[in-house]
Amino acid sequence: MTDFQEKMDGYRQRVEEALERALQFGNCPQQAVIDAMRYSLLGGGKRIRAILLLEFAGACGVSEEAAMPFAAALEMIHAYSLIHDDLPCMDDDDLRRGKPSCHVRFGEANALLAGDALLTHAFAVAASAKLPADRVLAAVSELAGAAGVLGMIGGQTLDLESEGREIDEARLIDIHRMKTGALISAGPVIGCILGGQPGRIDEAREYGLRLGLAFQIVDDILDVTGDQQILGKPIGSDRDNVKTTTVSLYGLERAGRLADDLTGQALSILKGFDFSDGFMEELTRILAKRQK
Amino acid sequence: MTDFQEKMDGYRQRVEEALERALQFGNCPQQAVIDAMRYSLLGGGKRIRAILLLEFAGACGVSEEAAMPFAAALEMIHAYSLIHDDLPCMDDDDLRRGKPSCHVRFGEANALLAGDALLTHAFAVAASAKLPADRVLAAVSELAGAAGVLGMIGGQTLDLESEGREIDEARLIDIHRMKTGALISAGPVIGCILGGQPGRIDEAREYGLRLGLAFQIVDDILDVTGDQQILGKPIGSDRDNVKTTTVSLYGLERAGRLADDLTGQALSILKGFDFSDGFMEELTRILAKRQK
Repeated sequence: MTDFQEKMDGYRQRVEEALERALQFGNCPQQAVIDAMRYSLLGGGKRIRAILLLEFAGACGVSEEAAMPFAAALEMIHAYSLIHDDLPCMDDDDLRRGKPSCHVRFGEANALLAGDALLTHAFAVAASAKLPADRVLAAVSELAGAAGVLGMIGGQTLDLESEGREIDEARLIDIHRMKTGALISAGPVIGCILGGQPGRIDEAREYGLRLGLAFQIVDDILDVTGDQQILGKPIGSDRDNVKTTTVSLYGLERAGRLADDLTGQALSILKGFDFSDGFMEELTRILAKRQK
Repeated sequence: MTDFQEKMDGYRQRVEEALERALQFGNCPQQAVIDAMRYSLLGGGKRIRAILLLEFAGACGVSEEAAMPFAAALEMIHAYSLIHDDLPCMDDDDLRRGKPSCHVRFGEANALLAGDALLTHAFAVAASAKLPADRVLAAVSELAGAAGVLGMIGGQTLDLESEGREIDEARLIDIHRMKTGALISAGPVIGCILGGQPGRIDEAREYGLRLGLAFQIVDDILDVTGDQQILGKPIGSDRDNVKTTTVSLYGLERAGRLADDLTGQALSILKGFDFSDGFMEELTRILAKRQK
Protein backbone atom coordinates (compact mmCIF):
# COMPACT_ATOMS: atom_id res chain seq x y z
CA MET A 1 0.00 0.00 0.00
CA THR A 2 1.35 3.42 -0.90
CA ASP A 3 1.76 6.17 1.70
CA PHE A 4 -1.00 8.04 -0.10
CA GLN A 5 -3.49 5.22 0.19
CA GLU A 6 -2.58 4.67 3.82
CA LYS A 7 -3.12 8.33 4.68
CA MET A 8 -6.38 8.34 2.73
CA ASP A 9 -7.67 5.26 4.54
CA GLY A 10 -6.68 6.74 7.90
CA TYR A 11 -8.58 9.93 7.14
CA ARG A 12 -11.65 8.02 6.03
CA GLN A 13 -11.66 5.91 9.14
CA ARG A 14 -11.32 8.88 11.48
CA VAL A 15 -13.99 10.87 9.61
CA GLU A 16 -16.27 7.85 9.79
CA GLU A 17 -15.70 7.58 13.54
CA ALA A 18 -16.44 11.28 14.00
CA LEU A 19 -19.67 10.93 12.02
CA GLU A 20 -20.64 7.89 14.06
CA ARG A 21 -20.06 9.85 17.28
CA ALA A 22 -22.00 12.85 15.94
CA LEU A 23 -25.07 10.67 15.40
CA GLN A 24 -25.38 9.47 18.99
CA PHE A 25 -28.65 10.89 20.28
CA GLY A 26 -29.14 8.63 23.28
CA ASN A 27 -32.27 6.70 23.99
CA CYS A 28 -35.17 8.50 22.32
CA PRO A 29 -38.32 7.36 20.55
CA GLN A 30 -37.73 9.09 17.19
CA GLN A 31 -35.56 6.23 15.93
CA ALA A 32 -37.14 6.23 12.46
CA VAL A 33 -35.44 9.46 11.46
CA ILE A 34 -32.19 8.58 13.22
CA ASP A 35 -32.02 5.25 11.39
CA ALA A 36 -32.54 7.03 8.07
CA MET A 37 -29.84 9.61 8.94
CA ARG A 38 -27.38 6.84 9.84
CA TYR A 39 -28.19 4.84 6.71
CA SER A 40 -27.39 7.73 4.40
CA LEU A 41 -24.48 9.27 6.28
CA LEU A 42 -22.42 6.31 7.46
CA GLY A 43 -20.52 3.56 5.75
CA GLY A 44 -19.89 5.03 2.34
CA GLY A 45 -18.69 7.98 0.35
CA LYS A 46 -15.25 9.21 -0.55
CA ARG A 47 -15.21 11.84 2.24
CA ILE A 48 -13.35 14.18 -0.14
CA ARG A 49 -14.98 17.31 1.30
CA ALA A 50 -13.98 16.41 4.84
CA ILE A 51 -10.43 15.48 3.86
CA LEU A 52 -9.91 18.73 1.94
CA LEU A 53 -11.03 20.65 5.00
CA LEU A 54 -8.75 18.74 7.36
CA GLU A 55 -5.74 19.13 5.05
CA PHE A 56 -6.15 22.89 4.59
CA ALA A 57 -6.86 23.36 8.30
CA GLY A 58 -3.66 21.41 9.03
CA ALA A 59 -1.66 23.58 6.60
CA CYS A 60 -3.00 26.61 8.51
CA GLY A 61 -1.94 25.21 11.87
CA VAL A 62 -5.20 23.68 13.13
CA SER A 63 -5.19 20.18 14.61
CA GLU A 64 -7.32 17.48 13.08
CA GLU A 65 -9.29 17.13 16.30
CA ALA A 66 -10.16 20.83 16.38
CA ALA A 67 -11.20 20.93 12.71
CA MET A 68 -13.11 17.63 12.71
CA PRO A 69 -16.55 19.09 13.68
CA PHE A 70 -16.54 21.14 10.47
CA ALA A 71 -15.31 18.18 8.41
CA ALA A 72 -18.21 16.14 9.81
CA ALA A 73 -20.64 19.00 9.16
CA LEU A 74 -19.60 19.18 5.49
CA GLU A 75 -20.21 15.45 5.06
CA MET A 76 -23.63 15.78 6.71
CA ILE A 77 -24.59 18.56 4.32
CA HIS A 78 -23.36 16.50 1.37
CA ALA A 79 -25.37 13.49 2.57
CA TYR A 80 -28.55 15.55 3.07
CA SER A 81 -28.23 16.98 -0.44
CA LEU A 82 -28.00 13.47 -1.90
CA ILE A 83 -31.09 12.30 0.04
CA HIS A 84 -33.18 15.23 -1.16
CA ASP A 85 -31.76 15.01 -4.72
CA ASP A 86 -32.83 11.37 -4.95
CA LEU A 87 -36.46 12.06 -3.92
CA PRO A 88 -39.19 11.35 -6.50
CA CYS A 89 -39.93 15.07 -6.95
CA MET A 90 -36.25 15.70 -7.78
CA ASP A 91 -34.10 13.17 -9.70
CA ASP A 92 -36.20 10.17 -8.59
CA ASP A 93 -33.17 7.90 -8.19
CA ASP A 94 -33.71 4.50 -6.59
CA LEU A 95 -30.03 3.67 -6.16
CA ARG A 96 -27.23 5.46 -4.34
CA ARG A 97 -23.77 3.97 -3.83
CA GLY A 98 -25.12 0.59 -4.89
CA LYS A 99 -27.81 0.57 -2.20
CA PRO A 100 -31.51 1.57 -2.28
CA SER A 101 -31.83 5.35 -1.85
CA CYS A 102 -32.99 6.65 1.50
CA HIS A 103 -36.64 7.13 0.46
CA VAL A 104 -36.81 3.66 -1.11
CA ARG A 105 -35.58 2.14 2.13
CA PHE A 106 -37.37 4.36 4.71
CA GLY A 107 -40.23 6.02 2.81
CA GLU A 108 -40.39 9.54 1.43
CA ALA A 109 -41.49 11.31 4.61
CA ASN A 110 -38.67 9.86 6.71
CA ALA A 111 -36.16 10.58 3.95
CA LEU A 112 -37.32 14.20 3.75
CA LEU A 113 -36.99 14.57 7.54
CA ALA A 114 -33.65 12.74 7.64
CA GLY A 115 -32.28 15.23 5.09
CA ASP A 116 -33.64 18.15 7.08
CA ALA A 117 -32.20 16.68 10.26
CA LEU A 118 -28.71 16.14 8.77
CA LEU A 119 -28.64 19.73 7.50
CA THR A 120 -29.75 21.06 10.89
CA HIS A 121 -27.39 18.84 12.85
CA ALA A 122 -24.47 19.93 10.65
CA PHE A 123 -24.75 23.40 12.19
CA ALA A 124 -25.01 22.05 15.72
CA VAL A 125 -21.88 19.97 15.20
CA ALA A 126 -19.97 22.79 13.49
CA ALA A 127 -20.83 25.22 16.30
CA SER A 128 -19.37 22.76 18.83
CA ALA A 129 -15.81 23.17 17.48
CA LYS A 130 -13.29 23.99 20.22
CA LEU A 131 -11.58 26.97 18.58
CA PRO A 132 -11.83 30.75 19.09
CA ALA A 133 -15.51 31.71 18.86
CA ASP A 134 -15.00 34.40 16.20
CA ARG A 135 -13.32 31.91 13.87
CA VAL A 136 -15.96 29.25 14.46
CA LEU A 137 -18.69 31.79 13.78
CA ALA A 138 -17.06 32.94 10.55
CA ALA A 139 -16.74 29.30 9.49
CA VAL A 140 -20.44 28.68 10.28
CA SER A 141 -21.29 31.62 7.98
CA GLU A 142 -19.14 30.18 5.22
CA LEU A 143 -20.79 26.77 5.64
CA ALA A 144 -24.28 28.26 5.39
CA GLY A 145 -23.27 30.37 2.39
CA ALA A 146 -21.76 27.43 0.52
CA ALA A 147 -24.83 25.24 1.14
CA GLY A 148 -27.39 28.00 0.52
CA VAL A 149 -29.21 29.79 -2.23
CA LEU A 150 -26.06 31.42 -3.64
CA GLY A 151 -24.23 28.09 -3.40
CA MET A 152 -25.35 24.47 -3.59
CA ILE A 153 -29.12 25.08 -3.50
CA GLY A 154 -28.80 27.78 -6.17
CA GLY A 155 -27.03 25.24 -8.36
CA GLN A 156 -29.70 22.62 -7.75
CA THR A 157 -32.39 25.14 -8.70
CA LEU A 158 -30.71 25.97 -12.01
CA ASP A 159 -29.97 22.32 -12.66
CA LEU A 160 -33.65 21.52 -12.20
CA GLU A 161 -34.69 24.24 -14.64
CA SER A 162 -32.21 23.08 -17.24
CA GLU A 163 -33.48 19.52 -17.44
CA GLY A 164 -35.00 18.61 -20.76
CA ARG A 165 -33.68 21.72 -22.51
CA GLU A 166 -30.39 22.90 -23.92
CA ILE A 167 -28.35 25.39 -21.94
CA ASP A 168 -25.22 27.25 -22.94
CA GLU A 169 -21.70 26.86 -21.62
CA ALA A 170 -21.88 29.85 -19.24
CA ARG A 171 -25.00 28.53 -17.54
CA LEU A 172 -23.59 25.02 -17.26
CA ILE A 173 -20.41 26.33 -15.60
CA ASP A 174 -22.60 28.42 -13.26
CA ILE A 175 -24.51 25.30 -12.24
CA HIS A 176 -21.38 23.26 -11.57
CA ARG A 177 -19.67 26.11 -9.74
CA MET A 178 -22.62 26.37 -7.35
CA LYS A 179 -23.94 22.82 -7.17
CA THR A 180 -20.63 20.99 -6.78
CA GLY A 181 -17.97 23.69 -6.49
CA ALA A 182 -19.40 25.56 -3.51
CA LEU A 183 -19.30 22.60 -1.12
CA ILE A 184 -15.93 21.35 -2.41
CA SER A 185 -14.46 24.85 -1.94
CA ALA A 186 -15.97 25.15 1.52
CA GLY A 187 -13.42 22.68 2.93
CA PRO A 188 -10.30 24.60 1.86
CA VAL A 189 -11.90 27.97 2.73
CA ILE A 190 -13.08 26.86 6.17
CA GLY A 191 -9.66 25.35 6.81
CA CYS A 192 -8.13 28.83 6.32
CA ILE A 193 -10.82 30.51 8.45
CA LEU A 194 -10.33 28.09 11.33
CA GLY A 195 -6.57 28.65 11.12
CA GLY A 196 -7.06 32.42 11.41
CA GLN A 197 -5.66 33.04 7.92
CA PRO A 198 -8.37 35.04 6.13
CA GLY A 199 -5.76 36.34 3.64
CA ARG A 200 -5.57 32.87 2.10
CA ILE A 201 -9.32 32.39 1.62
CA ASP A 202 -9.41 33.62 -1.99
CA GLU A 203 -6.67 31.24 -3.11
CA ALA A 204 -8.29 28.36 -1.21
CA ARG A 205 -11.60 29.08 -2.91
CA GLU A 206 -10.00 29.23 -6.35
CA TYR A 207 -8.36 25.87 -5.71
CA GLY A 208 -11.67 24.37 -4.62
CA LEU A 209 -13.64 25.78 -7.56
CA ARG A 210 -11.14 24.41 -10.08
CA LEU A 211 -11.02 21.04 -8.38
CA GLY A 212 -14.83 20.99 -8.10
CA LEU A 213 -15.27 21.74 -11.78
CA ALA A 214 -12.75 19.08 -12.77
CA PHE A 215 -14.54 16.68 -10.40
CA GLN A 216 -17.88 17.39 -12.07
CA ILE A 217 -16.49 16.99 -15.58
CA VAL A 218 -15.10 13.59 -14.61
CA ASP A 219 -18.58 12.76 -13.26
CA ASP A 220 -20.05 13.65 -16.65
CA ILE A 221 -17.41 11.55 -18.43
CA LEU A 222 -18.03 8.56 -16.14
CA ASP A 223 -21.75 8.79 -16.87
CA VAL A 224 -20.81 7.93 -20.47
CA THR A 225 -17.73 5.71 -20.14
CA GLY A 226 -18.01 4.39 -16.59
CA ASP A 227 -18.57 0.88 -15.27
CA GLN A 228 -21.97 0.55 -13.60
CA GLN A 229 -20.63 -2.02 -11.15
CA ILE A 230 -17.77 0.20 -10.01
CA LEU A 231 -19.91 3.36 -9.90
CA GLY A 232 -22.73 1.76 -7.91
CA LYS A 233 -25.31 3.59 -10.01
CA PRO A 234 -26.69 3.29 -13.56
CA ILE A 235 -24.73 5.03 -16.32
CA GLY A 236 -26.32 6.96 -19.19
CA SER A 237 -28.74 8.79 -16.88
CA ASP A 238 -27.69 12.22 -18.21
CA ARG A 239 -28.47 11.16 -21.79
CA ASP A 240 -31.76 9.55 -20.71
CA ASN A 241 -32.72 12.78 -18.92
CA VAL A 242 -31.74 14.91 -21.99
CA LYS A 243 -29.35 16.75 -19.75
CA THR A 244 -26.71 19.16 -21.00
CA THR A 245 -23.33 18.12 -19.60
CA THR A 246 -19.75 19.07 -20.31
CA VAL A 247 -19.57 15.91 -22.45
CA SER A 248 -22.66 16.75 -24.53
CA LEU A 249 -21.32 20.29 -24.93
CA TYR A 250 -17.62 19.64 -25.68
CA GLY A 251 -17.41 15.95 -26.55
CA LEU A 252 -15.45 13.39 -24.54
CA GLU A 253 -11.99 14.40 -25.67
CA ARG A 254 -12.27 18.14 -25.07
CA ALA A 255 -14.05 17.55 -21.75
CA GLY A 256 -11.14 15.34 -20.68
CA ARG A 257 -8.61 18.01 -21.66
CA LEU A 258 -10.57 20.65 -19.74
CA ALA A 259 -10.55 18.48 -16.61
CA ASP A 260 -6.77 18.10 -17.01
CA ASP A 261 -6.29 21.86 -17.43
CA LEU A 262 -8.35 22.64 -14.35
CA THR A 263 -6.44 20.03 -12.37
CA GLY A 264 -3.18 21.64 -13.48
CA GLN A 265 -4.38 25.06 -12.31
CA ALA A 266 -5.52 23.61 -8.99
CA LEU A 267 -2.09 21.99 -8.54
CA SER A 268 -0.28 25.25 -9.08
CA ILE A 269 -2.47 27.04 -6.49
CA LEU A 270 -1.59 24.29 -3.99
CA LYS A 271 2.07 25.31 -4.07
CA GLY A 272 1.19 28.48 -2.12
CA PHE A 273 0.15 26.45 0.93
CA ASP A 274 2.36 24.75 3.54
CA PHE A 275 1.42 21.12 3.21
CA SER A 276 3.68 18.75 5.08
CA ASP A 277 3.83 16.11 2.34
CA GLY A 278 2.75 15.39 -1.23
CA PHE A 279 -0.66 14.04 -0.22
CA MET A 280 -2.73 16.98 -1.47
CA GLU A 281 -0.96 16.97 -4.84
CA GLU A 282 -1.66 13.30 -5.30
CA LEU A 283 -5.26 13.66 -4.14
CA THR A 284 -5.82 16.51 -6.62
CA ARG A 285 -4.35 14.44 -9.45
CA ILE A 286 -6.22 11.28 -8.53
CA LEU A 287 -9.66 12.92 -8.44
CA ALA A 288 -9.32 13.73 -12.13
CA LYS A 289 -8.38 10.12 -12.94
CA ARG A 290 -10.89 8.31 -10.76
CA GLN A 291 -13.13 5.45 -11.91
CA LYS A 292 -16.02 6.25 -9.57
CA MET B 1 -56.24 50.67 19.36
CA THR B 2 -54.83 49.41 22.66
CA ASP B 3 -51.16 49.83 23.58
CA PHE B 4 -50.83 46.07 23.29
CA GLN B 5 -52.12 45.95 19.75
CA GLU B 6 -49.96 48.89 18.78
CA LYS B 7 -46.81 47.24 20.15
CA MET B 8 -47.75 43.96 18.47
CA ASP B 9 -48.25 45.64 15.10
CA GLY B 10 -44.97 47.49 15.46
CA TYR B 11 -43.12 44.25 16.15
CA ARG B 12 -44.75 42.52 13.22
CA GLN B 13 -43.86 45.32 10.87
CA ARG B 14 -40.22 45.44 11.96
CA VAL B 15 -39.87 41.63 11.82
CA GLU B 16 -41.41 41.68 8.34
CA GLU B 17 -38.92 44.35 7.24
CA ALA B 18 -36.03 42.33 8.65
CA LEU B 19 -37.20 39.23 6.79
CA GLU B 20 -37.58 41.22 3.59
CA ARG B 21 -33.99 42.51 3.97
CA ALA B 22 -32.71 39.01 4.75
CA LEU B 23 -34.07 37.71 1.45
CA GLN B 24 -32.19 40.17 -0.78
CA PHE B 25 -29.82 38.04 -2.85
CA GLY B 26 -29.05 40.53 -5.59
CA ASN B 27 -29.32 39.79 -9.26
CA CYS B 28 -28.91 36.05 -9.74
CA PRO B 29 -30.47 33.50 -12.07
CA GLN B 30 -31.89 31.13 -9.41
CA GLN B 31 -35.06 33.24 -9.01
CA ALA B 32 -37.34 30.20 -8.89
CA VAL B 33 -36.19 29.17 -5.43
CA ILE B 34 -35.98 32.76 -4.19
CA ASP B 35 -39.57 33.44 -5.31
CA ALA B 36 -40.74 30.34 -3.45
CA MET B 37 -38.82 31.38 -0.32
CA ARG B 38 -40.34 34.87 -0.41
CA TYR B 39 -43.83 33.52 -1.01
CA SER B 40 -43.75 31.31 2.07
CA LEU B 41 -41.78 33.56 4.40
CA LEU B 42 -43.18 37.03 3.79
CA GLY B 43 -46.56 38.64 4.25
CA GLY B 44 -48.19 36.38 6.79
CA GLY B 45 -47.84 34.61 10.07
CA LYS B 46 -48.24 35.77 13.63
CA ARG B 47 -44.44 36.15 14.16
CA ILE B 48 -44.94 34.87 17.73
CA ARG B 49 -41.58 33.10 17.80
CA ALA B 50 -39.71 36.22 16.73
CA ILE B 51 -41.58 38.46 19.16
CA LEU B 52 -40.92 36.13 22.11
CA LEU B 53 -37.23 36.22 21.26
CA LEU B 54 -37.11 40.00 20.99
CA GLU B 55 -39.00 40.48 24.27
CA PHE B 56 -36.79 38.12 26.28
CA ALA B 57 -33.65 39.56 24.68
CA GLY B 58 -34.89 43.02 25.66
CA ALA B 59 -35.53 41.90 29.24
CA CYS B 60 -31.93 40.64 29.31
CA GLY B 61 -30.55 43.94 28.05
CA VAL B 62 -30.14 43.25 24.32
CA SER B 63 -31.37 45.82 21.78
CA GLU B 64 -33.96 44.82 19.21
CA GLU B 65 -31.53 45.55 16.41
CA ALA B 66 -28.88 43.22 17.86
CA ALA B 67 -31.35 40.38 18.48
CA MET B 68 -33.24 40.72 15.19
CA PRO B 69 -31.06 38.30 13.15
CA PHE B 70 -32.06 35.47 15.50
CA ALA B 71 -35.72 36.54 15.46
CA ALA B 72 -35.60 36.40 11.65
CA ALA B 73 -33.82 33.05 11.74
CA LEU B 74 -36.55 31.54 13.94
CA GLU B 75 -39.25 32.70 11.53
CA MET B 76 -37.29 31.22 8.60
CA ILE B 77 -37.07 27.87 10.35
CA HIS B 78 -40.77 27.99 11.16
CA ALA B 79 -41.58 28.82 7.51
CA TYR B 80 -39.37 25.99 6.18
CA SER B 81 -41.05 23.50 8.51
CA LEU B 82 -44.48 24.50 7.19
CA ILE B 83 -43.37 24.16 3.55
CA HIS B 84 -41.99 20.66 4.13
CA ASP B 85 -44.96 19.67 6.34
CA ASP B 86 -47.39 20.59 3.55
CA LEU B 87 -45.61 18.44 0.91
CA PRO B 88 -47.56 15.51 -0.55
CA CYS B 89 -45.33 12.95 1.18
CA MET B 90 -46.08 14.61 4.55
CA ASP B 91 -49.49 16.15 5.39
CA ASP B 92 -50.33 16.86 1.72
CA ASP B 93 -52.01 20.18 2.51
CA ASP B 94 -53.01 22.40 -0.42
CA LEU B 95 -53.80 25.48 1.65
CA ARG B 96 -51.69 27.50 4.07
CA ARG B 97 -52.81 30.79 5.57
CA GLY B 98 -55.64 30.94 3.04
CA LYS B 99 -53.27 30.71 0.06
CA PRO B 100 -52.11 27.74 -2.05
CA SER B 101 -49.25 25.95 -0.27
CA CYS B 102 -45.75 26.46 -1.61
CA HIS B 103 -45.65 23.22 -3.63
CA VAL B 104 -49.07 23.89 -5.17
CA ARG B 105 -47.87 27.29 -6.33
CA PHE B 106 -44.25 26.51 -7.30
CA GLY B 107 -44.11 22.73 -7.76
CA GLU B 108 -42.77 20.11 -5.39
CA ALA B 109 -39.10 20.37 -6.32
CA ASN B 110 -38.95 24.14 -5.84
CA ALA B 111 -40.87 23.87 -2.57
CA LEU B 112 -38.44 21.24 -1.29
CA LEU B 113 -35.47 23.44 -2.22
CA ALA B 114 -37.11 26.60 -0.84
CA GLY B 115 -37.54 24.85 2.51
CA ASP B 116 -33.93 23.66 2.45
CA ALA B 117 -32.80 27.16 1.52
CA LEU B 118 -34.77 28.86 4.32
CA LEU B 119 -33.34 26.44 6.88
CA THR B 120 -29.81 27.01 5.59
CA HIS B 121 -30.19 30.77 5.35
CA ALA B 122 -31.52 30.92 8.91
CA PHE B 123 -28.06 29.92 10.14
CA ALA B 124 -26.31 32.44 7.88
CA VAL B 125 -28.55 35.23 9.18
CA ALA B 126 -28.22 34.13 12.82
CA ALA B 127 -24.43 33.99 12.55
CA SER B 128 -24.42 37.59 11.29
CA ALA B 129 -25.68 38.98 14.63
CA LYS B 130 -23.49 41.81 15.96
CA LEU B 131 -23.00 40.57 19.52
CA PRO B 132 -20.07 38.87 21.32
CA ALA B 133 -19.06 35.84 19.24
CA ASP B 134 -19.30 33.36 22.14
CA ARG B 135 -22.93 34.32 22.78
CA VAL B 136 -23.85 34.21 19.11
CA LEU B 137 -22.25 30.79 18.81
CA ALA B 138 -24.12 29.45 21.85
CA ALA B 139 -27.34 30.81 20.38
CA VAL B 140 -26.61 29.13 17.01
CA SER B 141 -26.23 25.83 18.91
CA GLU B 142 -29.53 26.37 20.68
CA LEU B 143 -31.23 27.16 17.37
CA ALA B 144 -29.91 23.99 15.74
CA GLY B 145 -30.86 21.92 18.78
CA ALA B 146 -34.42 23.28 18.89
CA ALA B 147 -34.93 22.65 15.16
CA GLY B 148 -33.19 19.28 15.09
CA VAL B 149 -33.73 15.62 15.77
CA LEU B 150 -34.17 16.12 19.53
CA GLY B 151 -36.49 19.08 18.89
CA MET B 152 -38.84 19.97 16.06
CA ILE B 153 -37.81 17.23 13.61
CA GLY B 154 -38.03 14.62 16.36
CA GLY B 155 -41.59 15.77 17.02
CA GLN B 156 -42.46 15.60 13.33
CA THR B 157 -41.09 12.07 13.15
CA LEU B 158 -43.23 10.87 16.07
CA ASP B 159 -46.24 12.77 14.75
CA LEU B 160 -45.87 10.99 11.42
CA GLU B 161 -45.70 7.59 13.11
CA SER B 162 -48.76 8.30 15.22
CA GLU B 163 -51.09 9.06 12.31
CA GLY B 164 -53.89 6.58 11.89
CA ARG B 165 -53.31 4.96 15.27
CA GLU B 166 -54.06 5.79 18.87
CA ILE B 167 -51.29 7.05 21.08
CA ASP B 168 -51.25 7.64 24.81
CA GLU B 169 -51.06 10.90 26.68
CA ALA B 170 -47.33 10.71 27.42
CA ARG B 171 -46.46 10.26 23.73
CA LEU B 172 -48.79 13.05 22.66
CA ILE B 173 -47.18 15.47 25.13
CA ASP B 174 -43.74 14.36 23.87
CA ILE B 175 -44.78 15.17 20.31
CA HIS B 176 -46.10 18.62 21.19
CA ARG B 177 -43.15 19.42 23.41
CA MET B 178 -40.77 18.71 20.53
CA LYS B 179 -42.79 19.65 17.47
CA THR B 180 -44.21 22.96 18.71
CA GLY B 181 -42.61 23.60 22.09
CA ALA B 182 -38.98 23.44 21.03
CA LEU B 183 -39.18 26.30 18.54
CA ILE B 184 -41.46 28.40 20.77
CA SER B 185 -39.03 27.93 23.68
CA ALA B 186 -36.07 28.77 21.48
CA GLY B 187 -37.03 32.47 21.43
CA PRO B 188 -37.03 32.98 25.21
CA VAL B 189 -33.93 30.79 25.64
CA ILE B 190 -31.95 32.52 22.88
CA GLY B 191 -32.99 35.89 24.31
CA CYS B 192 -31.27 34.93 27.60
CA ILE B 193 -28.20 33.55 25.81
CA LEU B 194 -27.76 36.71 23.73
CA GLY B 195 -28.11 38.78 26.89
CA GLY B 196 -25.33 36.82 28.58
CA GLN B 197 -27.68 35.44 31.25
CA PRO B 198 -27.27 31.66 31.08
CA GLY B 199 -28.63 31.34 34.61
CA ARG B 200 -32.10 32.25 33.32
CA ILE B 201 -32.20 29.73 30.47
CA ASP B 202 -34.03 27.02 32.43
CA GLU B 203 -36.85 29.33 33.49
CA ALA B 204 -37.12 30.75 29.97
CA ARG B 205 -37.39 27.23 28.56
CA GLU B 206 -40.05 26.25 31.09
CA TYR B 207 -42.05 29.32 30.14
CA GLY B 208 -41.75 28.48 26.43
CA LEU B 209 -42.67 24.82 26.87
CA ARG B 210 -45.83 25.69 28.84
CA LEU B 211 -46.80 28.38 26.37
CA GLY B 212 -46.07 26.03 23.45
CA LEU B 213 -48.20 23.27 24.90
CA ALA B 214 -51.08 25.68 25.59
CA PHE B 215 -50.66 27.00 22.04
CA GLN B 216 -50.90 23.49 20.59
CA ILE B 217 -53.96 22.60 22.67
CA VAL B 218 -55.70 25.73 21.38
CA ASP B 219 -54.73 24.60 17.85
CA ASP B 220 -56.42 21.25 18.53
CA ILE B 221 -59.51 23.01 19.91
CA LEU B 222 -59.72 25.36 16.90
CA ASP B 223 -59.55 22.36 14.56
CA VAL B 224 -62.91 21.34 16.09
CA THR B 225 -64.59 24.65 16.96
CA GLY B 226 -62.81 27.16 14.72
CA ASP B 227 -64.08 29.21 11.81
CA GLN B 228 -62.57 28.08 8.51
CA GLN B 229 -62.69 31.64 7.13
CA ILE B 230 -60.80 33.09 10.08
CA LEU B 231 -58.30 30.21 10.28
CA GLY B 232 -57.50 30.26 6.57
CA LYS B 233 -57.43 26.46 6.48
CA PRO B 234 -60.03 23.67 6.59
CA ILE B 235 -61.19 22.54 10.04
CA GLY B 236 -61.79 18.91 11.02
CA SER B 237 -58.52 17.74 9.44
CA ASP B 238 -57.38 16.01 12.65
CA ARG B 239 -60.59 13.95 12.79
CA ASP B 240 -60.38 13.16 9.07
CA ASN B 241 -56.78 11.99 9.56
CA VAL B 242 -57.75 9.87 12.60
CA LYS B 243 -55.24 11.84 14.60
CA THR B 244 -54.97 11.69 18.38
CA THR B 245 -55.14 15.24 19.74
CA THR B 246 -55.56 16.74 23.18
CA VAL B 247 -59.26 17.16 22.28
CA SER B 248 -59.76 13.53 21.26
CA LEU B 249 -57.91 12.47 24.42
CA TYR B 250 -59.43 14.80 27.03
CA GLY B 251 -62.57 16.23 25.41
CA LEU B 252 -63.08 19.91 24.62
CA GLU B 253 -63.76 21.06 28.15
CA ARG B 254 -60.81 19.41 29.88
CA ALA B 255 -58.49 20.43 27.03
CA GLY B 256 -59.60 24.04 27.51
CA ARG B 257 -58.93 23.83 31.25
CA LEU B 258 -55.48 22.35 30.62
CA ALA B 259 -54.62 25.22 28.25
CA ASP B 260 -55.74 27.67 30.95
CA ASP B 261 -53.64 25.93 33.62
CA LEU B 262 -50.54 25.96 31.42
CA THR B 263 -51.09 29.62 30.61
CA GLY B 264 -51.33 30.36 34.34
CA GLN B 265 -48.04 28.57 34.98
CA ALA B 266 -46.39 30.43 32.11
CA LEU B 267 -47.65 33.73 33.53
CA SER B 268 -46.16 33.03 36.93
CA ILE B 269 -42.74 32.20 35.41
CA LEU B 270 -42.86 35.55 33.55
CA LYS B 271 -42.79 37.42 36.87
CA GLY B 272 -39.13 36.42 37.33
CA PHE B 273 -38.08 38.48 34.31
CA ASP B 274 -37.61 42.24 34.01
CA PHE B 275 -40.10 43.21 31.35
CA SER B 276 -40.63 46.92 30.96
CA ASP B 277 -44.42 46.72 30.57
CA GLY B 278 -47.38 44.32 30.66
CA PHE B 279 -47.00 43.30 27.01
CA MET B 280 -45.67 39.79 27.62
CA GLU B 281 -48.42 39.03 30.14
CA GLU B 282 -51.06 40.09 27.70
CA LEU B 283 -49.43 38.18 24.83
CA THR B 284 -49.29 35.03 26.96
CA ARG B 285 -52.97 35.38 27.87
CA ILE B 286 -54.11 36.19 24.35
CA LEU B 287 -52.42 33.19 22.75
CA ALA B 288 -54.67 30.90 24.82
CA LYS B 289 -57.79 32.80 23.72
CA ARG B 290 -57.00 33.25 20.05
CA GLN B 291 -59.40 32.52 17.19
CA LYS B 292 -56.72 31.55 14.65
